[in-house]
Amino acid sequence: MDQLRRDPIAGRWVIVNTDNPSDPGEFEIEKNPEGKGTCPFCYGNEKMTPPEIQAHREGGGQPDSSGWSTRVVPNKFPALRIEGNIDRQGLGMFDMSNGVGAHEVIIETPDHSKSLADLMDHEVEKVIWAYRDRSVDLRGDKRFKYILIFKNHGFSAGASLPHSHSQLIALPMVPKNVKEELVGAGSYYDYKDRCIFCDIIAQEYQEQERIICENERFLCIAPYASRFPFESWILPKEHHSDFSFIRNEDVIDLSRILKEVLLRMKKLLHDPPYNFIIHTSAIEHRDREDYHWHIEIMPKLVRIAGFEWGSGFYINPTPPEVATRYLKEVSI
Amino acid sequence: MDQLRRDPIAGRWVIVNTDNPSDPGEFEIEKNPEGKGTCPFCYGNEKMTPPEIQAHREGGGQPDSSGWSTRVVPNKFPALRIEGNIDRQGLGMFDMSNGVGAHEVIIETPDHSKSLADLMDHEVEKVIWAYRDRSVDLRGDKRFKYILIFKNHGFSAGASLPHSHSQLIALPMVPKNVKEELVGAGSYYDYKDRCIFCDIIAQEYQEQERIICENERFLCIAPYASRFPFESWILPKEHHSDFSFIRNEDVIDLSRILKEVLLRMKKLLHDPPYNFIIHTSAIEHRDREDYHWHIEIMPKLVRIAGFEWGSGFYINPTPPEVATRYLKEVSI
Repeated sequence: MDQLRRDPIAGRWVIVNTDNPSDPGEFEIEKNPEGKGTCPFCYGNEKMTPPEIQAHREGGGQPDSSGWSTRVVPNKFPALRIEGNIDRQGLGMFDMSNGVGAHEVIIETPDHSKSLADLMDHEVEKVIWAYRDRSVDLRGDKRFKYILIFKNHGFSAGASLPHSHSQLIALPMVPKNVKEELVGAGSYYDYKDRCIFCDIIAQEYQEQERIICENERFLCIAPYASRFPFESWILPKEHHSDFSFIRNEDVIDLSRILKEVLLRMKKLLHDPPYNFIIHTSAIEHRDREDYHWHIEIMPKLVRIAGFEWGSGFYINPTPPEVATRYLKEVSI
Repeated sequence: MDQLRRDPIAGRWVIVNTDNPSDPGEFEIEKNPEGKGTCPFCYGNEKMTPPEIQAHREGGGQPDSSGWSTRVVPNKFPALRIEGNIDRQGLGMFDMSNGVGAHEVIIETPDHSKSLADLMDHEVEKVIWAYRDRSVDLRGDKRFKYILIFKNHGFSAGASLPHSHSQLIALPMVPKNVKEELVGAGSYYDYKDRCIFCDIIAQEYQEQERIICENERFLCIAPYASRFPFESWILPKEHHSDFSFIRNEDVIDLSRILKEVLLRMKKLLHDPPYNFIIHTSAIEHRDREDYHWHIEIMPKLVRIAGFEWGSGFYINPTPPEVATRYLKEVSI
């Protein structure tokens, strides 16, 4: 069983692979092992993944057979394991927990050559529905406190398989980065009685310098303190704290804006490696007035070095106002 | 002038290059542009850097001439600029400051082909003295609250020039990652009346599972909650909160253990990319009983992906106990 270990000084948690430790020879950081051999996410190879959790199959059909448009499977090499109860304990001054959690893969398309930006609107919608359905399902498991949905695109953004997919990890604790946002947004709300994200949206409309695109229900901005060049956040215009309660009409608009932003980045930056994450409130908090779910899209165009690791500062060579101008102007 | 911008939600600061914004075509994340052309850090090319701040020249000699063993120069492309007063202001709900700070480069050796791990003991000592001298000097500048010393080795760890060097950035605020350690160590001290780092050292001696090497005054451990495979921390055995007050005898032992650990990593992991950072207390806090300066060495063997960016969790495939065994056993 893997372990979750807490750093006693800074309080961050680390998932330590105690079951199958990697030896010194196993790392390949500077090489990009191009997806060779059979792709487990293509039609006909469904048996190469663990048995599927859910799939969209318009024409019906057996689980783990071809004919699907999106497919959700357990991660074959999970960071956390779904079995067992959470067992926290001390080890002298150190704290640990066993590695309980869910780790799922959302295969976004059967087409090996397409990225999320290339899909049709209705195909992106199905991906969002898969995110939403898995979130709703996993909320029911009392062991979990947080559900994090994320995507790694491109080798240097951490993708290990080139076939387009996203991932979901359900965690037995609210992660540090979300806690920080909850605390920051909470302090602002205590002081102002307003949601900080709603206020940011209002200020962005006033300044008109960092709005990349929008539709009826969603807005995409380059955040004022963007950590990365061309970082972009998608927010619902109406206040909602929890992604898993997203409604039908929102799914349609979210799919369209997500695809649009990814396509703008792809065109402008020549298919850059990127990560995106969905930040939503913790499972136990339903309908928070002080938090606002959103997607953070982070193209990986610069290397993170000692200064960033040591300080928590970031150095961004492209101001968000400049990034916005470029992203708006690119023709898609 | 560059800007420092504060993320209003999470509170992190970003240095935004508003003077010389990078255009979309300027990023080369997946390529390693091998140091071509003339190296500005080699003998004879001293005029390629800004005028030197200090240098060790055993035989004497003019500034900015050859014959030095270590040389400190301002960074030619500084993240922050040394001129001007700190000017903080609001911009609606956003907060910014102008980008005042010092950004210096410590050239560790005139030998283009050697890394810090390859230097002689007395050469590493000179590097540590340069760190110390620059720290002491910059403490005198009332605009600065923190001095961060760090090193990037290898392309994927962020090094832009292959000639061995470290960097120093003096900041007008205490960085987030240090604040977190100060807060965590402070809470522990409030509760226990003991330094958390001293307690960690005591527990590591008891467990004998994560001590990589030691000498009279320093200890190197693989921390219990290591974020990265083969992460290693060097700590003074005696309680000291501030690196800049390091004494003569400590410099000798620190040089030896730093070189030893870097050499062990180099041999075991085939010259891996790595960062190291010196975490010391903030300038205004002299002699804190609750903080203990240390060096964190982070080999970059795994890619950081969406899960880590979204959560602040890390996934470490090599438990520190396993890493310790390998690092101890490698023959140097």
